[in-house]
Amino acid sequence: MTDISAIESAGRQARAAGREIAGSSGAQRTDAILRIAAGLRENVKPILDANALDLEAGRAKGLEASFIDRLALDASRVDAMARAVEEIAAQADPVGALESEIIRPNGLRVGRQRIPLGVVAVIYEARPNVTSDAAALALRSGNAIILKGGSDARHSNRAIGDVVTAAVQSAGLPGATVQVLTAVDRDDIRALLKLEDDIDVVIPRGGEALIRFVSAESRIPVIKHYKGVCHVYVDAAADVQMALRIIENGKVQRPSVCNSVETVLVHGDIADEVVPALGALLGERGVTIHGCERTQQLYPGAVPATEDDWHAEYLSLDVAVRVVDDIGQAIAHIHAYGSDHTEAIISGSLHATQRFRAEVQSSCVMVNASTRFADGGQLGLGAEIGISTSRLHAYGPMGAEGLTTTRFVVIGDGHIRE
Amino acid sequence: MTDISAIESAGRQARAAGREIAGSSGAQRTDAILRIAAGLRENVKPILDANALDLEAGRAKGLEASFIDRLALDASRVDAMARAVEEIAAQADPVGALESEIIRPNGLRVGRQRIPLGVVAVIYEARPNVTSDAAALALRSGNAIILKGGSDARHSNRAIGDVVTAAVQSAGLPGATVQVLTAVDRDDIRALLKLEDDIDVVIPRGGEALIRFVSAESRIPVIKHYKGVCHVYVDAAADVQMALRIIENGKVQRPSVCNSVETVLVHGDIADEVVPALGALLGERGVTIHGCERTQQLYPGAVPATEDDWHAEYLSLDVAVRVVDDIGQAIAHIHAYGSDHTEAIISGSLHATQRFRAEVQSSCVMVNASTRFADGGQLGLGAEIGISTSRLHAYGPMGAEGLTTTRFVVIGDGHIRE
Repeated sequence: MTDISAIESAGRQARAAGREIAGSSGAQRTDAILRIAAGLRENVKPILDANALDLEAGRAKGLEASFIDRLALDASRVDAMARAVEEIAAQADPVGALESEIIRPNGLRVGRQRIPLGVVAVIYEARPNVTSDAAALALRSGNAIILKGGSDARHSNRAIGDVVTAAVQSAGLPGATVQVLTAVDRDDIRALLKLEDDIDVVIPRGGEALIRFVSAESRIPVIKHYKGVCHVYVDAAADVQMALRIIENGKVQRPSVCNSVETVLVHGDIADEVVPALGALLGERGVTIHGCERTQQLYPGAVPATEDDWHAEYLSLDVAVRVVDDIGQAIAHIHAYGSDHTEAIISGSLHATQRFRAEVQSSCVMVNASTRFADGGQLGLGAEIGISTSRLHAYGPMGAEGLTTTRFVVIGDGHIRE
Repeated sequence: MTDISAIESAGRQARAAGREIAGSSGAQRTDAILRIAAGLRENVKPILDANALDLEAGRAKGLEASFIDRLALDASRVDAMARAVEEIAAQADPVGALESEIIRPNGLRVGRQRIPLGVVAVIYEARPNVTSDAAALALRSGNAIILKGGSDARHSNRAIGDVVTAAVQSAGLPGATVQVLTAVDRDDIRALLKLEDDIDVVIPRGGEALIRFVSAESRIPVIKHYKGVCHVYVDAAADVQMALRIIENGKVQRPSVCNSVETVLVHGDIADEVVPALGALLGERGVTIHGCERTQQLYPGAVPATEDDWHAEYLSLDVAVRVVDDIGQAIAHIHAYGSDHTEAIISGSLHATQRFRAEVQSSCVMVNASTRFADGGQLGLGAEIGISTSRLHAYGPMGAEGLTTTRFVVIGDGHIRE
């Protein structure tokens, strides 16, 4: 049942809490984050009991096994959640200090200060760990946050939310700093997405349908990525064994995630060596190769690729393979079909890797490394609040600093403008 | 006459040019910017001839004198445009270099590189100097740009656009790097605002009606500010003469701009001294004071303020004045009525100024300085492409760096994820 006034009230309370927490000390927010971790460890049983209710309902509803797997918690997963929160507590506080200061010729001191965005909303699907991660990242960056998880995870999210709220209040911060909404429907989300005065940014996390819904309905700026069509380009100067290892890792290690490899581009001069070996290696691992004509000639196990394959985010044991004439054609392919997520070049040539870095403008460019490293944790951001594949505000994985901005602090001594 | 295909073609050409210019050197872009300045100086006559056509049409149409003033060029204004462009040429190049690099425990080098946004569109009203300023800022930051000025300035913009295009091409950069659209109507703008694949950000500059139109129609992210309701708070520990000078400067020096003062908040302990002096000073300068009850008692020349006055962006010789009990009430007033643009505190108290800085989260906070310094040039950014009063991406005046973002460049040596 939609209750617009409850949603509007949540927004107003978040704005008020955001103003209060923006003035709090980093030490106080660290204390609150550590209290969340302790609360998770102390409340394993109520969290697992709540999770069991969600799992039972999910199985009765016939949810897919992969969905149930993302939803399911056990003692070790709750422990991992607590450890992730502790790592966020250990991060440097990103807000408050002046990042730089210049003195203008007239003596005016112009400082740039990093401050919180204010109020963040995260709309997500099955994974209950997002609740504690996002709450901790919001506290680290001095923001209030509204969390709307999937309804199939509502008992789990409510139990985790209770832990978070108790921790925040016991640290002396406003209870509304973190609000976990569990009893809301699509109309409530629509109402939430209209609160442009009280919410500064919305981050949807989940499938493309959820993200398109949020983008279409929101009056608040949205940070998002629709999909990851990640490429590996094997240059003529590649170490072939390295290329095979990196492609295998990118495709097979966890095919269902957005930073897995979807298309391999192979330089024509090295294709005779790479394509048959790649076909054999991936074939053994159960991967279907969707190949261009040249790929099919070099690896007869390939199925013919269509135009759709170059656009595909398979998220499965499928990969598109195309032989290109040169690095220019590889870059043109990435411009035409890429999603600005992550692209890798495998090459020992400084000239080729420098050109690839200069001309491929994706949010992550990997040189001789797996696309699977495109992840906030792997890149040293601590936990990740989301990934952006559009260039405004953030580009690539976002951590706590992605939830901040800079403003001007100007100190004068009676300065007026002539 | 709307020609959607021409607009779509402009978007595609901008994307292609943006990719090319992103790989160009800073030196080549500096050369192009200097050629714009030289071209402006060499083409004063054709630019003024074109401007005369706009002025004639504008007068025949009965446009307001202030509008005609913003539109009008003369030799010294064209010279000022050339100088502004030369200053942008002299700025440090913001793009290309790694801003930071860390080495992860596994040896992976994770760099953050500043890169252009890609394609920027600016939609503006009467001032022809925006055309050359914005073109130069786009080149400085490695972006392609689409410029849509007001139809009342179309001859002027076409003449300036011709100078810019010739300069860009003679520097060996793609002609479509800067596109000046002069023959487009509202439907064309609507079509432009749907090109989310080819344009990365839209910056509307002009009145609130234009900005609301662009925000409502755009599928592309918009950077904007609706209005500037700027406050000066005169603390109990203020130097009264300094406060009077700063308020006078903020209100009278140029009342029609967004960083002028609209509301003055006076601490009750000092109101007996400040309000009568302020009333006398501003009264002499022709300013009408819209005062709270206490203000009216202390300065009988004040007219009664209504709720609307606290929200007002007058842009005229009017100012709202309210006596507050303490700094907390001043900050609460700013939270309730402010526009996140610029607020100033006048105080000799470190405690009061630190509290004001911490709790007022506007994009510019001034301590003992005029709000009129909230301007890209005054803050040391060089020219200004726009001002943002929402916190995503940019907050406050934006220069060339505001047209850039950072992405990840990761160097491995065959690294795969375990």
